[in-house]
Amino acid sequence: MPTANRNPEIRKDAVNNRWVILSSARSRRPSDFKSKSQSKTDSNSTSNAQPQCPFCAGNEHQCAPEIFRVPEDSTSDWKVRVIENLYPALSRQPEVKSDHEEYCQANGTAGEVSLGGFGFHDVIIESPVHSVHLPDLSPAGVAVVLLAYKKRIEQLCAVDSISFVQVFKNHGASAGASMSHSHSQILALPVVPTTASTRLDSMKEYHNQTGRCSLCDIHTDNFLIDESTHFISIAPFASTFPFEIWIVPRHHSSHYHELDEDKAIDLGGLLKLTLLKLSLQLNDPPYNFMIHTSPLQVTSSQSPYTHWYIQIVPQLSTIGGFEMGTGCYINPVFPEDAAKILREVEVP
Amino acid sequence: MPTANRNPEIRKDAVNNRWVILSSARSRRPSDFKSKSQSKTDSNSTSNAQPQCPFCAGNEHQCAPEIFRVPEDSTSDWKVRVIENLYPALSRQPEVKSDHEEYCQANGTAGEVSLGGFGFHDVIIESPVHSVHLPDLSPAGVAVVLLAYKKRIEQLCAVDSISFVQVFKNHGASAGASMSHSHSQILALPVVPTTASTRLDSMKEYHNQTGRCSLCDIHTDNFLIDESTHFISIAPFASTFPFEIWIVPRHHSSHYHELDEDKAIDLGGLLKLTLLKLSLQLNDPPYNFMIHTSPLQVTSSQSPYTHWYIQIVPQLSTIGGFEMGTGCYINPVFPEDAAKILREVEVP
Ligand SMILES: Nc1ncnc2c1ncn2[C@@H]1O[C@H](COP(=O)(O)OP(=O)(O)O[C@H]2O[C@H](CO)[C@@H](O)[C@H](O)[C@H]2O)[C@@H](O)[C@H]1O
Ligand SMILES: Nc1ncnc2c1ncn2[C@@H]1O[C@H](COP(=O)(O)OP(=O)(O)O[C@H]2O[C@H](CO)[C@@H](O)[C@H](O)[C@H]2O)[C@@H](O)[C@H]1O
Repeated sequence: MPTANRNPEIRKDAVNNRWVILSSARSRRPSDFKSKSQSKTDSNSTSNAQPQCPFCAGNEHQCAPEIFRVPEDSTSDWKVRVIENLYPALSRQPEVKSDHEEYCQANGTAGEVSLGGFGFHDVIIESPVHSVHLPDLSPAGVAVVLLAYKKRIEQLCAVDSISFVQVFKNHGASAGASMSHSHSQILALPVVPTTASTRLDSMKEYHNQTGRCSLCDIHTDNFLIDESTHFISIAPFASTFPFEIWIVPRHHSSHYHELDEDKAIDLGGLLKLTLLKLSLQLNDPPYNFMIHTSPLQVTSSQSPYTHWYIQIVPQLSTIGGFEMGTGCYINPVFPEDAAKILREVEVP
Repeated sequence: MPTANRNPEIRKDAVNNRWVILSSARSRRPSDFKSKSQSKTDSNSTSNAQPQCPFCAGNEHQCAPEIFRVPEDSTSDWKVRVIENLYPALSRQPEVKSDHEEYCQANGTAGEVSLGGFGFHDVIIESPVHSVHLPDLSPAGVAVVLLAYKKRIEQLCAVDSISFVQVFKNHGASAGASMSHSHSQILALPVVPTTASTRLDSMKEYHNQTGRCSLCDIHTDNFLIDESTHFISIAPFASTFPFEIWIVPRHHSSHYHELDEDKAIDLGGLLKLTLLKLSLQLNDPPYNFMIHTSPLQVTSSQSPYTHWYIQIVPQLSTIGGFEMGTGCYINPVFPEDAAKILREVEVP
């Protein structure tokens, strides 16, 4: 990967309050392990009929119950299905109890907390056809998936004890995927996870100092990749990973589910373009994307500084003990170099 | 892995203030990707002579400069060498400059920070012989490595602008290692990374509430694995990863480098035992360990609640977008089950 030879830098972003080490020297180190299989073996078979895949059209009966499909009309063919996860991380039973709730109380262990694992864990099947991946869809086709996320989040908002909803996608085994059929997941939690509360604090601090929203202010100079009517894509100033990309709404918006149909098609086009560029430039890498939205119960005093965005991360290397220990990542590719490369990728 | 079938729980620990989802249902999900190669291919060759390995005795000239060796006497054979990393993440030149320092100032970007990448990045070669891994050494042999960490940290403490030192080990390619010869690394930073400052805040809060140190108080009931004169090993209450282990000093101590020779041999024995148990139970898995010590400039008011420990994590699965997005991990193995299994492993 041709990137400029720069001095190492330690950067912190204004959104997540996270340090990162940028060091191009790191990209030159050799490895005496066999190089790890990239996403060809990873993102698997491209044949159409997969009799054993429960996510394929025709195998609906092998899946956990459906929540809804698009279009809703059950007589026509579906484009997208939202179903329960058959092996859920959390239980849909509000009365699920932790053996340790009592234990923690009895032992008065300050700091340690145990809650019953109540929550929702759903799967979004993005296409009825095994070989069709998200960027293979048209902008309007991607929008159908994006609007299914929105609809499901709105349903989850209605559940009293749900505080946070995480939408994410794993593509390829090295990105954690256990299923190769194109899909994403939604987890709804009764707590606000650390990353989201840290982001809230960090964006608040920026707002206190400047009176502005850190994501409305995000600078694009050398970091811009592409833009559409309502969104921009950038390589963030303090990128945690090589070729990390953020897609940010131009106009201030706290929650992903404020997305309307027009914007969904516009976003569908930019997301498709971005995934195609990653695939062309990095040889179809495994990747994750995460929708970073605000906690559901954001107050009116918080809304001026909360702003949702999508983070896309191609999985190009394995992290080690330094990152696990410190939460500070070593990134060998400067984001201004990644942005330049991705700006120039030509999509046929 | 035979673990009890329990209801899912959401737990938070008192040390790191981090949520984790424990869910045994997750361990039953199938995968349509080929199962990933475990550490046999991963932790590589066991032959003795590796002409092309720079960490082997005889190949010292292929390495970046030596900082010190043990024993220091350069005429006898070395047991451990501490060397500079040939592809360092940070630069040893205090005057290293970031192009963005001025940029950030000129643009007055609140929140975004850029520092020159000053710091130290060293490698500890744990044995002169390619096939000898850390747990193959005697307790006293492991202690030589542990005391080399201590000595190097003490040297780094003397550098004014260094705020934090992270010692870590990567074993096996899936744990991030690029070199198979047994080694660990030390990175010294001019900033305190997020994980360490979050831990400091969290331990302070516990101390404010209880007047005690959260790690002195850590409960061992169902979570204890082994104990030695000066240390205990446990599966922590809110384990982030399956079979995660912490080794904690029994007596309150803020910094790893307070370790003396006696305690180093005692710790060497327990660390050896722990790594052997993981290897036997989990079929020589790739793993990381991290020494979580306190920032170097801890004040006397902070020392009552700061306590170092070692975190050991076998790499058994790939994380996905949920963990990347939220910082909340889904762990299919309850720590009380992991502790029971590891307690009962018989080491020949
Ligand atoms: N017949 C069926 N009906 C309904 N659902 C079915 C099903 N068969 C399988 N599923 C579910 O489909 C989902 C597919 O998800 P992914 O492939 O994105 O990754 P997975 O959740 O397995 O784990 C990755 O993502 C999670 C979350 O980030 C990480 O914890 C983990 O380590 C990583 O491997 C699984 O959660 C599975 O339970
Ligand atoms: N001849 C020589 N002389 C001196 N040093 C030499 C050398 N040849 C190689 N080295 C150094 O030896 C080190 C070996 O380290 P590891 O195998 O533990 O993992 P590495 O640092 O490559 O990356 C893993 O750990 C880091 C930190 O956690 C992660 O950023 C990364 O993604 C992960 O793969 C490398 O840092 C390399 O630069």
